[in-house]
Amino acid sequence: MMSELFENHQAMLNSALVACGDRSYFSAFLEIPSGKIYGETAKADGEAWFKDRMNGAYALAGHPGAKGAAGKESSPFGPTLGVTYPKADVGTLISAAEAAAGAWGRAPIETRIGVCLEALVRINMQSFAMANAVMHTTGQAFAMAFQAGGPHAQDRGLEAVAYAYQEMTRTPASALWTKPQGKRDPLVMEKNFRVIPRGLSLVIGCATFPTWNTYPALFASLACGNPVIIKPHPDAILPLALTVEILRDVLTETGFDPNVVLLAVDEKGAEITQEIATHPAIKTIDFTGSNGFARWLKDNVDRDTALYTEEAGVNSIVIASSSQYRAMCDNIAFSISLYSGQMCTAPQNIYVPAGGIESDEGPKSFDAVAADIGQAVDRLLSDPDRAAAISGAIANPATVERVKQAVSLGTVVRASTPVEGAGDARTATPLVMTIDDDASEAHKGECFGPVCFVVKAADADSALKNASGLAREKGAITAAVYAQDEATLDRAVDAFAEAGVALSCNLTGQIFVNQSAAFSDYHVSGANPAGNACLTDAAFVAGRFRIAPSRRLKAA
Amino acid sequence: MMSELFENHQAMLNSALVACGDRSYFSAFLEIPSGKIYGETAKADGEAWFKDRMNGAYALAGHPGAKGAAGKESSPFGPTLGVTYPKADVGTLISAAEAAAGAWGRAPIETRIGVCLEALVRINMQSFAMANAVMHTTGQAFAMAFQAGGPHAQDRGLEAVAYAYQEMTRTPASALWTKPQGKRDPLVMEKNFRVIPRGLSLVIGCATFPTWNTYPALFASLACGNPVIIKPHPDAILPLALTVEILRDVLTETGFDPNVVLLAVDEKGAEITQEIATHPAIKTIDFTGSNGFARWLKDNVDRDTALYTEEAGVNSIVIASSSQYRAMCDNIAFSISLYSGQMCTAPQNIYVPAGGIESDEGPKSFDAVAADIGQAVDRLLSDPDRAAAISGAIANPATVERVKQAVSLGTVVRASTPVEGAGDARTATPLVMTIDDDASEAHKGECFGPVCFVVKAADADSALKNASGLAREKGAITAAVYAQDEATLDRAVDAFAEAGVALSCNLTGQIFVNQSAAFSDYHVSGANPAGNACLTDAAFVAGRFRIAPSRRLKAA
Repeated sequence: MMSELFENHQAMLNSALVACGDRSYFSAFLEIPSGKIYGETAKADGEAWFKDRMNGAYALAGHPGAKGAAGKESSPFGPTLGVTYPKADVGTLISAAEAAAGAWGRAPIETRIGVCLEALVRINMQSFAMANAVMHTTGQAFAMAFQAGGPHAQDRGLEAVAYAYQEMTRTPASALWTKPQGKRDPLVMEKNFRVIPRGLSLVIGCATFPTWNTYPALFASLACGNPVIIKPHPDAILPLALTVEILRDVLTETGFDPNVVLLAVDEKGAEITQEIATHPAIKTIDFTGSNGFARWLKDNVDRDTALYTEEAGVNSIVIASSSQYRAMCDNIAFSISLYSGQMCTAPQNIYVPAGGIESDEGPKSFDAVAADIGQAVDRLLSDPDRAAAISGAIANPATVERVKQAVSLGTVVRASTPVEGAGDARTATPLVMTIDDDASEAHKGECFGPVCFVVKAADADSALKNASGLAREKGAITAAVYAQDEATLDRAVDAFAEAGVALSCNLTGQIFVNQSAAFSDYHVSGANPAGNACLTDAAFVAGRFRIAPSRRLKAA
Repeated sequence: MMSELFENHQAMLNSALVACGDRSYFSAFLEIPSGKIYGETAKADGEAWFKDRMNGAYALAGHPGAKGAAGKESSPFGPTLGVTYPKADVGTLISAAEAAAGAWGRAPIETRIGVCLEALVRINMQSFAMANAVMHTTGQAFAMAFQAGGPHAQDRGLEAVAYAYQEMTRTPASALWTKPQGKRDPLVMEKNFRVIPRGLSLVIGCATFPTWNTYPALFASLACGNPVIIKPHPDAILPLALTVEILRDVLTETGFDPNVVLLAVDEKGAEITQEIATHPAIKTIDFTGSNGFARWLKDNVDRDTALYTEEAGVNSIVIASSSQYRAMCDNIAFSISLYSGQMCTAPQNIYVPAGGIESDEGPKSFDAVAADIGQAVDRLLSDPDRAAAISGAIANPATVERVKQAVSLGTVVRASTPVEGAGDARTATPLVMTIDDDASEAHKGECFGPVCFVVKAADADSALKNASGLAREKGAITAAVYAQDEATLDRAVDAFAEAGVALSCNLTGQIFVNQSAAFSDYHVSGANPAGNACLTDAAFVAGRFRIAPSRRLKAA
């Protein structure tokens, strides 16, 4: 069965490899939450799955730890989940992973890849269940929870598997080395190269994108032969418990110890992250979260443990001019409204020249641009159903508080309000303010959540310089620019490239700066303080295994 | 001229890429120190070059710092070199590198690769000069200084350039991304991907292989667009000064600021390594040297600075049985005698079962094996000329002292002696001792220099277990095994692979465990304490640059 799995999914893997190479469009997992794709009962089954899990102990067959011992999630949409999970102490988890490591690390590359691909396909089949799990832990609206938590995350996982496969197989398993010796017979050696895993891998999940941000590291480490301990954020365990359940099923069915994948559950105020992260058996750590905890990891984790981080930053849009003014305002309004600004790719600062801009609708003053963006948000969110579908809910109560406090930081153009008709959900629509780039500091750090600063810059060049400078200093994952002329676009490309930020130019319509597509867009550059690694490039994967060579004299 | 260089050397680059991929035999730079290859006057020219440099200030046109301000090298063969070098303070070096960084980082990939390849070819033309420089700083005998310091190091540099080229070009410069939208027109985005350098690179050289251990990092960082500051070991500056001179010439000729490559010279007791290594502008550090200084770097260098180390370890040979007993003893004798055991790939411990071994000459007791290895060393070094050509001289006086002290650690089978007729040279032939694996600790750490322990192990399996366990615990770069039966060889392959050690099986004749061939053998695995990186694999190169993407809506 083991090589069967690889063969079954080889076409998908090959397509992924091609797309990783040419960065063209590819998606293995369909993003439309449709019964025609996922089965007519899939939606109802997903809801039922979620309801069945609520107020119960999540079963993970054979997982170490006491059943139902931890878990205090509650939905940003209201209900307490009441799901509990097995909880084991750190030593027990490490021992279980170590016991599982040998056979997994020694398995043929194709076998491991097959297990990873089969698990991704099965996770895909559970995308409706996953959507419910992601929605009710992160506050993402259903459609986004389905896409970002389901197929898009699965594509990111596949991308990591493809990179891992490519990296591991670029060295041949064996080679004949024939060195000429002048008139004498050549020296001939048979050489063998074995891929050996780096060691136990710890993946620390975040509260907003528990699967999307976890799958690249999870699948890259697994594919390279490393057992993975997943430490979910205490607020977003359920999506990763489902992931772990499916992976453990596939591992068990293929004859591996399911403890190759483990869930390390904790609760707020009693986190075990530091204890696991500093355990000497952990050889790789992937972290998504705050700069503060990333700093702690950098200061405390052994230097020989590989550490990949995705941290916070300040994403900016620079408006130099616009040939599609209204479409631009609509596009920006969507970008700052989507999941209420809780995406690591969401823009926070919109730099506009103090003297205003040229546009297809004639000149627009700085204040007019700010007002028009505010009005575009109003227009977008005017329909309560649409507003709910775009905004979702706020994951963390502190974010709501931050939005309330933020009104003092600038001049309010559009006030944040709850989403109309959202009931018990914790919601907040975007707060849009103007602020003076030179006179203020508030926008020069991350203000996480639905807070948008329209920043008055001296002129377009200052806007580019300061936005890209801020990215270099504080980090940024995305940037966008609007300009009618090529020269300004070229300057923007240069400025943001040197700051290591992924730039989008003149976006309008149904494509947004927030979006990062697997196989084509690199997520995080690793070249500014928003993270030291990229999801997913060769550097993200190549250090997760090593090569152990052996050689033997054949003729001399 | 700039793209010409790439085209001129493209065939060589392509051959290197093929060899890196299939790990077959390849060498771009010929290892025979022959006038027929390097020119009839090359030998004399190299000697003249060296004599001209002695007792003078090394000229590096335009290099920052005061001319002739530092440098106190003396040859392990006797003479004081009296060469002095420009010396600048750390701030000046960093500023100069930063000023040079922009144009180099923005240059087309092919331009940078062309400069690197041209420099390697010119370095190759100076191989006789380099041989003198390496010989009289490291103590390597001339033939080895020529090969290891010249062509073999150049091949390692080319290997790094090839990997860098492959990594940088595996992402296309641009891509068209066309996402189907059902019945609507597809979304089309044009995407551009720019390779951006990581930032200033520091390469810290070692005293024994100043070029061979420096070139992979130097050329990988350079090719990826990073200025490189080379901090030579204070005892082995001259080979790197020549390297820097040639690189700066090529940079100047191609219109770049020569300060893309800088030499940071210091003297013993006034080292500047810590100050440079902790400068915030340094983004990559490559270090070859002691575990102690590697530890310091790991504890003190910012976590976001990439740190690649090659450290010390304890290399072992396990003799389980032999079908070519005399050839085995001769091969081992050469391995422990070559450059007087000062290679990071030289074996230190030879594990032999207490009950002796089977061989083609009948059973051999433990003591007989130890004695026969000692006698093979005597035989090998019986001719003074050959002894000098193999042994070279001892780089560091402390090594001679260590050999003297070591006699108390075990039972001496063969005493270390000076090399006969070596004159003023600091020499020491191998000390061979027996030691009991269970009763002693002395062989369980590195005893750098010509010291060899024949270790009495309970049996062959204990020998394998303990030798590979020591590698896991203390690090090892190489291992060798001798066994007549496949089962033992297989167990050895498994044991040393899991310890991340490059294993050689049943070597006899003119191929030695010490040798590591560019394009085929991976040097250091990164999987045990002898180093956290491999020279050269994709992981060694992939983090030296990042990708900055930009994208633009073409149709929606």
